Amino acid sequence: LNHLNYQTLIATKAARIHEIGLGRPLLEFGIRRAHGKGGNAGARAALIGGADFTSNVGISHVLGYPPQGTHAHSMVQAFIALGYSELEAFQAYADVYPDDCLLLVDTVNSLESGLPNAIKVFEQLRQRGHEPVGIRLDSGDLAYLSIQAACMLDKAGFPDTTIVISGNLDELTIWQILTQIQGEAPRYGIEPDDLIGRLVYGVGTRLITSRGNSALGGVYKLVAIKKQGQWEPAIKLSETLSKTPNPGNKRVWRIYDKRDYATADLLGLGDENPQDMEGLRLHHPTDHTKVRVLYQDDIAEIEPLLVEVLRDGEVVYKNHTIEEMRQQRVSDMERLDPGVRRLIKPHIYHVSLTQELWDLKQDLIRSMRQ
Amino acid sequence: LNHLNYQTLIATKAARIHEIGLGRPLLEFGIRRAHGKGGNAGARAALIGGADFTSNVGISHVLGYPPQGTHAHSMVQAFIALGYSELEAFQAYADVYPDDCLLLVDTVNSLESGLPNAIKVFEQLRQRGHEPVGIRLDSGDLAYLSIQAACMLDKAGFPDTTIVISGNLDELTIWQILTQIQGEAPRYGIEPDDLIGRLVYGVGTRLITSRGNSALGGVYKLVAIKKQGQWEPAIKLSETLSKTPNPGNKRVWRIYDKRDYATADLLGLGDENPQDMEGLRLHHPTDHTKVRVLYQDDIAEIEPLLVEVLRDGEVVYKNHTIEEMRQQRVSDMERLDPGVRRLIKPHIYHVSLTQELWDLKQDLIRSMRQ
Repeated sequence: LNHLNYQTLIATKAARIHEIGLGRPLLEFGIRRAHGKGGNAGARAALIGGADFTSNVGISHVLGYPPQGTHAHSMVQAFIALGYSELEAFQAYADVYPDDCLLLVDTVNSLESGLPNAIKVFEQLRQRGHEPVGIRLDSGDLAYLSIQAACMLDKAGFPDTTIVISGNLDELTIWQILTQIQGEAPRYGIEPDDLIGRLVYGVGTRLITSRGNSALGGVYKLVAIKKQGQWEPAIKLSETLSKTPNPGNKRVWRIYDKRDYATADLLGLGDENPQDMEGLRLHHPTDHTKVRVLYQDDIAEIEPLLVEVLRDGEVVYKNHTIEEMRQQRVSDMERLDPGVRRLIKPHIYHVSLTQELWDLKQDLIRSMRQ
Repeated sequence: LNHLNYQTLIATKAARIHEIGLGRPLLEFGIRRAHGKGGNAGARAALIGGADFTSNVGISHVLGYPPQGTHAHSMVQAFIALGYSELEAFQAYADVYPDDCLLLVDTVNSLESGLPNAIKVFEQLRQRGHEPVGIRLDSGDLAYLSIQAACMLDKAGFPDTTIVISGNLDELTIWQILTQIQGEAPRYGIEPDDLIGRLVYGVGTRLITSRGNSALGGVYKLVAIKKQGQWEPAIKLSETLSKTPNPGNKRVWRIYDKRDYATADLLGLGDENPQDMEGLRLHHPTDHTKVRVLYQDDIAEIEPLLVEVLRDGEVVYKNHTIEEMRQQRVSDMERLDPGVRRLIKPHIYHVSLTQELWDLKQDLIRSMRQ
């Protein structure tokens, strides 16, 4: 439960951030703010959920993924403290990484010092036959600065360099930055889509800790117990209707409509099969007045979601690679209705109950109350 | 940094929760919602910061601490599903743990089922020469229910049994519950102090993830670098004054006033010693208009806070036991002014700079800007 809750939370958060980012790469930058060793599982979950790379070198190594990040401020600071300049720090870095040269430009001042110095180094690199990768902005008004950076880089002949933005980003901040770029960039002669097309997001704290909603409330509740080979359903009452667990040995299915969008998730008892049901009655999980009926003609596919992992103490599940899980996430997400995917006040996608499960639940609640 | 940030955060959160709890025991219950394996370090940090025990069996074992928790709802649910009753579940539990019998009473209904059943079991236990430990309330209005539970337990002759409360608790919720008990209990003939004196808090999600503020923003910044055996100070500029790091090889001291309360933390350069300073000039960390002067006559103690842990790659620090760290926390907390310890809008305790450090910082900022 400890592992499930956290990793599901972070994969979901990463999916939300990726979703708003207009397809641009997302780098997970959070290890320093992660909850101890949990950060490793979080970085892996982020990769599955929507991050393209992580700066967590250890977990990248374990997963066989290349880590991605930039140099630190300390590299530039060390040069300056020893009597050299930001330019010399950048040059030294470019000497070591001529083909991976991405420079963090805000140690002194992004527009007045960092960018002019980065452009000098990029020109020197090009003269030596290398193409620079880009720059990183880590403070200040990231929308404004990225527009100005794009102007300067374009003018200097580097219209294709990447602009990494970072600094307390999350899905809402990125959304706001993109909106601001779309409105502001044309005033400076920059095509917003061109600028957005060179952005990369570095997201740390607010991804790895899902800041603001740092826990997913998954619980372990007994729902059935075997008595002489038969499942006996179990229940627990609660003052809050939605907290009363659904009893019994159950299955869950996802039902796709003719548009190939998921239209409902349906929870039923283990011996039920929605394929066999003529008029599929979907009960709202708690509101007894709401029942929806689906006919097989309206249904494109019924996908069983429950996957067997353990049988008699043996693992019967084949592990998937990160890449396979990423693909699964992409194809699952594509089959969700845009209304459900909305970032703020999305359409709530309830997990409905079959008639049989609904009846069982009501019976058990009644018998417990007596 | 990963380990420092998280553990400091959770120890602080635990201290806040302990602080508001009027000295009653605090149990850390968060493992299922913790960030993966990070939960172990979090439980340890909670024990140092203010929790008395944790339900995390693994880390308790490692630390040599007894774990503490209660039985789960599933125990009662299993009995009911198999055709027995809540009372029989409680009796079975009491048979196994006659001297540690603490019963979770909200599986069916706390006041109508759980408590009457618990009282029956407690009476049976007493007849057999054992004293029951208490009950746990895990849902509903915990202030109201704990008052009603106290009434019922008192009337049944168990005025000393513990009442554990749990369910999305944090420092503010506990504060509210205690305030409500103080106001409401007398109406039911219950002395508030007596009731509060039998409470125990079980705090999970909001402690182990510091929900709402799930990260402490500790950073690694280069502040000095050795050049021919000499420390050269380094700096990084920032648009935000408070984010510009304090340069140089530094020390930090805590200064106690004649009341033996900490009156200031002072950051100075490595070769400075506040003991030698006649009029100690404390510079506000960012506001250049604020300087405070302390004279040695006003000072009870100057405590150096920086402790050497590594020297030339060797660990030179003696590890302390959890108990020693708890003691340290208690004595440190006692020397903080009540205004600083206040839960909401506390007096902000700035870390001040010495004159020498202040001057160095201004010089470096000026030279970077040029």
